[in-house]
Amino acid sequence: MFQRFDVTADASQGTARLAALRGLMAREGLDAVLVPRADRHQGEYVAPNDERLAWLTGFTGSAGFCAVTQAEAGVFIDGRYRVQVRAQVAADFTPVHWPETKLVDWLLERLGAGQALGFDPWLHTVEEIGKLRDALTPKGVGLVPIENPIDRLWTDRPAPPSAPFTAFPEEVAGESHASKRARIAAQLREAGERAVVLTLPDSIAWLLNIRGGDVAYNPVPHAYAVLHEDGRCDLYCRQGKADAILDHLGEEVRAHPETVFVPGLDFLPSPTRLDPKSAPEAIFEFLTARGITVSLGPDPCILPKARKTPQEIAATTEAHLRDGAAMVNFLAWLDRDAPQGGLTEIDVVRGLEGFRRATNALLDLSFDTICGAGAHGAIVHYRVTEATNAPVRPGELLLVDSGGQYLDGTTDITRTITVGEPPEGAAEAYTRVLQGLIAISRARFPRGVAGQHLDALARYPLWLAGQDYDHGTGHGVGVYLSVHEGPQRLSRLSDVPLEPGMILSNEPGYYREGAFGIRIENLILVEDAPVVPGGDARPMHAFRTLTWVPFDRRLIIKHILSEVERNWADAYHAAVFEKIGPRVEGAALEWLKAACTPL
Amino acid sequence: MFQRFDVTADASQGTARLAALRGLMAREGLDAVLVPRADRHQGEYVAPNDERLAWLTGFTGSAGFCAVTQAEAGVFIDGRYRVQVRAQVAADFTPVHWPETKLVDWLLERLGAGQALGFDPWLHTVEEIGKLRDALTPKGVGLVPIENPIDRLWTDRPAPPSAPFTAFPEEVAGESHASKRARIAAQLREAGERAVVLTLPDSIAWLLNIRGGDVAYNPVPHAYAVLHEDGRCDLYCRQGKADAILDHLGEEVRAHPETVFVPGLDFLPSPTRLDPKSAPEAIFEFLTARGITVSLGPDPCILPKARKTPQEIAATTEAHLRDGAAMVNFLAWLDRDAPQGGLTEIDVVRGLEGFRRATNALLDLSFDTICGAGAHGAIVHYRVTEATNAPVRPGELLLVDSGGQYLDGTTDITRTITVGEPPEGAAEAYTRVLQGLIAISRARFPRGVAGQHLDALARYPLWLAGQDYDHGTGHGVGVYLSVHEGPQRLSRLSDVPLEPGMILSNEPGYYREGAFGIRIENLILVEDAPVVPGGDARPMHAFRTLTWVPFDRRLIIKHILSEVERNWADAYHAAVFEKIGPRVEGAALEWLKAACTPL
Repeated sequence: MFQRFDVTADASQGTARLAALRGLMAREGLDAVLVPRADRHQGEYVAPNDERLAWLTGFTGSAGFCAVTQAEAGVFIDGRYRVQVRAQVAADFTPVHWPETKLVDWLLERLGAGQALGFDPWLHTVEEIGKLRDALTPKGVGLVPIENPIDRLWTDRPAPPSAPFTAFPEEVAGESHASKRARIAAQLREAGERAVVLTLPDSIAWLLNIRGGDVAYNPVPHAYAVLHEDGRCDLYCRQGKADAILDHLGEEVRAHPETVFVPGLDFLPSPTRLDPKSAPEAIFEFLTARGITVSLGPDPCILPKARKTPQEIAATTEAHLRDGAAMVNFLAWLDRDAPQGGLTEIDVVRGLEGFRRATNALLDLSFDTICGAGAHGAIVHYRVTEATNAPVRPGELLLVDSGGQYLDGTTDITRTITVGEPPEGAAEAYTRVLQGLIAISRARFPRGVAGQHLDALARYPLWLAGQDYDHGTGHGVGVYLSVHEGPQRLSRLSDVPLEPGMILSNEPGYYREGAFGIRIENLILVEDAPVVPGGDARPMHAFRTLTWVPFDRRLIIKHILSEVERNWADAYHAAVFEKIGPRVEGAALEWLKAACTPL
Repeated sequence: MFQRFDVTADASQGTARLAALRGLMAREGLDAVLVPRADRHQGEYVAPNDERLAWLTGFTGSAGFCAVTQAEAGVFIDGRYRVQVRAQVAADFTPVHWPETKLVDWLLERLGAGQALGFDPWLHTVEEIGKLRDALTPKGVGLVPIENPIDRLWTDRPAPPSAPFTAFPEEVAGESHASKRARIAAQLREAGERAVVLTLPDSIAWLLNIRGGDVAYNPVPHAYAVLHEDGRCDLYCRQGKADAILDHLGEEVRAHPETVFVPGLDFLPSPTRLDPKSAPEAIFEFLTARGITVSLGPDPCILPKARKTPQEIAATTEAHLRDGAAMVNFLAWLDRDAPQGGLTEIDVVRGLEGFRRATNALLDLSFDTICGAGAHGAIVHYRVTEATNAPVRPGELLLVDSGGQYLDGTTDITRTITVGEPPEGAAEAYTRVLQGLIAISRARFPRGVAGQHLDALARYPLWLAGQDYDHGTGHGVGVYLSVHEGPQRLSRLSDVPLEPGMILSNEPGYYREGAFGIRIENLILVEDAPVVPGGDARPMHAFRTLTWVPFDRRLIIKHILSEVERNWADAYHAAVFEKIGPRVEGAALEWLKAACTPL
C-alpha cells in the first residue's frame, strides 16, 4: 500500500521540545523564532527529515508554521485545520487563525524595539523575509538569520531521502532537455541575465527531463540547479542520486554534490536571476554579500512547464483512460458491495488502490485518497485514519477524491456516489454541482481570459440556489509530476491567462456540514478552439476533457438540467462507454453499460 | 435641443498652432511638452475653455493626449478613435496607437540625457507624473512643471464656465451633508489623517449635496474642497458660483474664491490625504514643498457615494419609470414611422429627446445619444453628426443608447430594434446578447465577488458561438450625477467587490463590422439577496432591475432561450406592462401591450 492510515500526531513530546527550543533561544539571545512547515524547496510535501513543524508541535497538516516566544507558541493554521490542530498539539501551543491573523501583526504585539527574531534563511523565501523585514525593521525588531534551531535539538532526526533520480523518457516529454535549456537560456539572454538559480524541484524535473523520489506522491528530485546563458547547467544534489542518469544528462549538465552548491554560488555571473516567490532568502543573502547582482524575477520554467507538449498530452490522455478503467472497476465493485454494509472508508481506499495497482502501471498515488462517508464528506481535506475510520452506510453519500501517478501521466478524479437512497437535498445539490462542471467543460473563451474570469461559471447554478463552496474550482496538474502545479488555476484569485496545453482540474462541490459532501472532478486541457461558423475572427480557447468515468445518475435530477446540459451529459457518458468499455470486462462492463445509458 | 450634430473637428488650424507651440518650447528650452485632454478635475467631459487638445490638434475624442517634440507630434488615441483621428488632425500630427504604445517608451525613443519634458502639473495626476518620473529620471530626462503652454497661445480662449451651484434635495440624497462630513471625517481620524483635499467634482457634489453646471451632461460642480478632521469643510470655486447655496452649506462649510485655493493649502495640517489617482501633481508638489506631510490614499467619498441610500434608490426607481415611459412612447413612434423610410439617425435622436422633454422633468441628457443605423451600429461610440447622418432603412438594425438626467436620477438604456426584416445572423446574435443580459440580471453571488468574476456570465452564450464584444459589460451609474461613475464595474479588470446600493449598467453587445451592431442595456442595483430555502447561511447579493422597457421580440429566437430564460423574459415583459402601462396611452399603450405579451 502507498497510503497509510496511522495516526501520526503525537502531542506528548511537545512540552519538552518547546522547553528545549526556548532554552536555545535564551542562550542565543533570540526573543522569538519561526518554525515553518516548508523545506528548502517550498513544496507541498516534505521529507521525514524536514517534518520540523510536526516534530515540535505535533501538528501534521500540509500548511502552517509556528512562531515561538518565551511566553507563547502560536501554531498558525488555515480553515482546513482548525479542528485537527486542537487534537494534535499540546496545551503549550496556541492555535492561531491564519491568514485572518497575520504573522507580522502577531509578532508586533509581542516584540518591541531591540528584540530579535531568529529564522532559518533556507526555509523562507526572499519575498517572505522581505515583507517581514519591511514591517519589523521600522519598529526596531531585528531579523536574525540562524542555523536551524530544530535541527540542533532533533537528535533522532531521520536521514534525508536518497532515492536515485531517473531519466524521464523524451518520447513522453516531447522535447529534449538540450532544447529546453536552449529555450530558457535564450529567454535569459533576452532579459539581459547571465544565469538563473532554480530551487523548485518541479522546474528542475521539467528542465532536465528527470524525476526523483524524495517526497511522497510527487516524483520530484530534491536538488538545486543553475542554468547559464549558454544553456549549460549545473545540478546539485545529494551524492549518488544522479549517478544513474549521467548519460542522460550529457556533457552540458554537470552533476555536483549538494555540499558544493553554496561555494559554487561564488562563481555566478552578474546579473543572476532568482525567483523571490520560491528561492530561499539564504541564496539571495549569499549572492548579494558576494557582490553578485541579483535580478529578481519569476522562475522561467514555470510557464513553459505548464504548456504541455503534444507528446505529454497524448501520454496523459492514455494514462487517464487506464486510470478511468481502474475507476470503473472500483465503482462497479463499490456499487455491488457498499449497499450491503460492512465496508469502511479504509476498505474503500484500499480497494481503490488495489484496482489502480492492477493496471501494473501505477508508480504511486498522486495524493492521499480523500474518502469521506456521510458527514466526513463535508470535510474538504479529510484524510481517513484508523482513528476516524467510519463505516460506509446506506442512506449516505460517499465522496472519493483520488489519483494515480503513472510514467505517462498524473490523474486526479473525484466522484461522489450515493449508497442506497441519497440524503435530503443531496441530489438537488449534486445536479447543480454537475451543471457547474458542465458549464466549465463547455466553455469557449477568448485569448487572455484567466481562471478568475471563469470560476463563477462553475458556481452560478449553486449561487442561484443560495449555495457555494469554499475552495477554488480547479488547479493546474502536471504530467507524471505534481498534482498541484502552477501557475494556472480556476480561482477567483488567479489572473494567469489560460493557454493551450495547460491541464486543470474542474472540481466544483457542495458541502453541508455534519451531513454530506459533494464534489465532482474531471481534468481538462486548454486547447485552441475550432472555428465556429458565424463566429468572430478572434482566437479562442476551449477545454478538452481528459477524465472519462461515469457520474452517479442516481444523483442527477433530470429536469433541473437544461436540454443542452442533458445532451452534454449523455454525450459524455456515450464517450465514456466508447473509450472505457473496451478496457473493462464482465460485471464491470455491465455496470458501465448501465451507467452510460442516456439520462 | 441638448444634443448638437455639428462637425466640431477643424484640422486647418493645427499646423500654425503646432508651429507656435514649438516656438514657445524653443524659447523655454523644452525638448518636449505634453498636451492632455484632461482638465484639473480629470473628468470624462471638459468645459470649452479646457479643450486644449482639440484646439491644438483638432481631435475631439473623449480620451487621448498629444506629446510634442520639435520633430514630431504624436496624438495618442485608443481603439475607439483610430478612424476618427485621421479625419480630424492635420498631417503634422502622427496618430499613435495607445495603450499599445506607451507614452514613456515613445518619449524614451525621442529624448535622451539632459533633455527636458514640460508638463502642466495641474492637468496630470500624482500617479501619472510619478510613473513618468520613475521611467525618465534614470535616463537623465528631466520633468519640468510649466505654466500651461496652450493657455499662453490660445488668444480667443472661451471663459471658464460660471453656472451657479444648486442644492441637491436632502430627501433625494437621503443623508444631510453634515452627516456625510461627519462620517468621512471619522474615517480620516481613524486613519490618523487630519484633512483631505478633494478635487473630483463627483465627490464634492456627493459630500456637500450640491450640483453644478460646468460641463455637458454631468451636473457636477467644478470646485476644490478640503474636508477637515472635525467635519468642517472649505469649498473653493469661481466667484459667484456658490452664492445661491450659502444657506444650504451652512456654517461648517465655507465657500472661498478659487483664487485662494493654493494660498489656502499653506494652512493644511499634517498629514493631509491626497488621492494619487485623481489629484493634480501641482497640489502634491505644493504641499510637500511647504513641509506638509501628504498621505497618499483613495478619495474617501468614492465608495460611500457608490452605495446609494434608500432614498436615492427610491428616487432613481421613479426616474427610471418616467424615462421608461418616454422610451416606450419613442419606440412605439419609431416602430410606426421607421419602416416607411425617410427617417435619419438625427431624426431619431431628435425624436427621442422630444419624448424625454415631454416628461417635463428632463434636466439634460446623460450623454450624446448613440444612434447607429446598420453598419453605424457596429461603431461602439458612434456619435451622429450632419456629416455622418444616415437614413434608417428597412432591413437594418438600429442601435439607440441614450439616457436622461432628472433631478431624481440618471438613466442609461440601450435598445436595438430591427427595422423590417433583420439582417442575416442578427436575430441569433441578439438572442445570445439577451441571454447574457438575463444571466447577469438573475445572478446571485456571495459577498466579496467583484465585477471581474461576473463579466463572463454575460459573454458565455456569445463565446459558445465564437463571438464576443470588445467593451466591458457594465459601469457604475450615479443618481443625478455622472452616468459613468466608479469604483464598481462589470469588467474583467474590476476587483472592487459589489456592495448593496451600487448601480451598474448591464450591457452586453455584439458588433459585426460593416453590417450591424447589437447592444441591450438595463441598469441594475446590487441588493442583499433574500434567503433561499435550502441555501447556505452565507450572505449573498443579487441584482434588482431598474430599467423597464420591452426588448424587440422580433429579434428573439425563442428556441435558443432555455425555459428559465424564456420565463425570465416573460416575467420582465409582464412587469414592464404593469409598471409602464399606466404611464402611456393611446397607440403607445397598444404598442406596449403587444410588445409585452409572452414570447
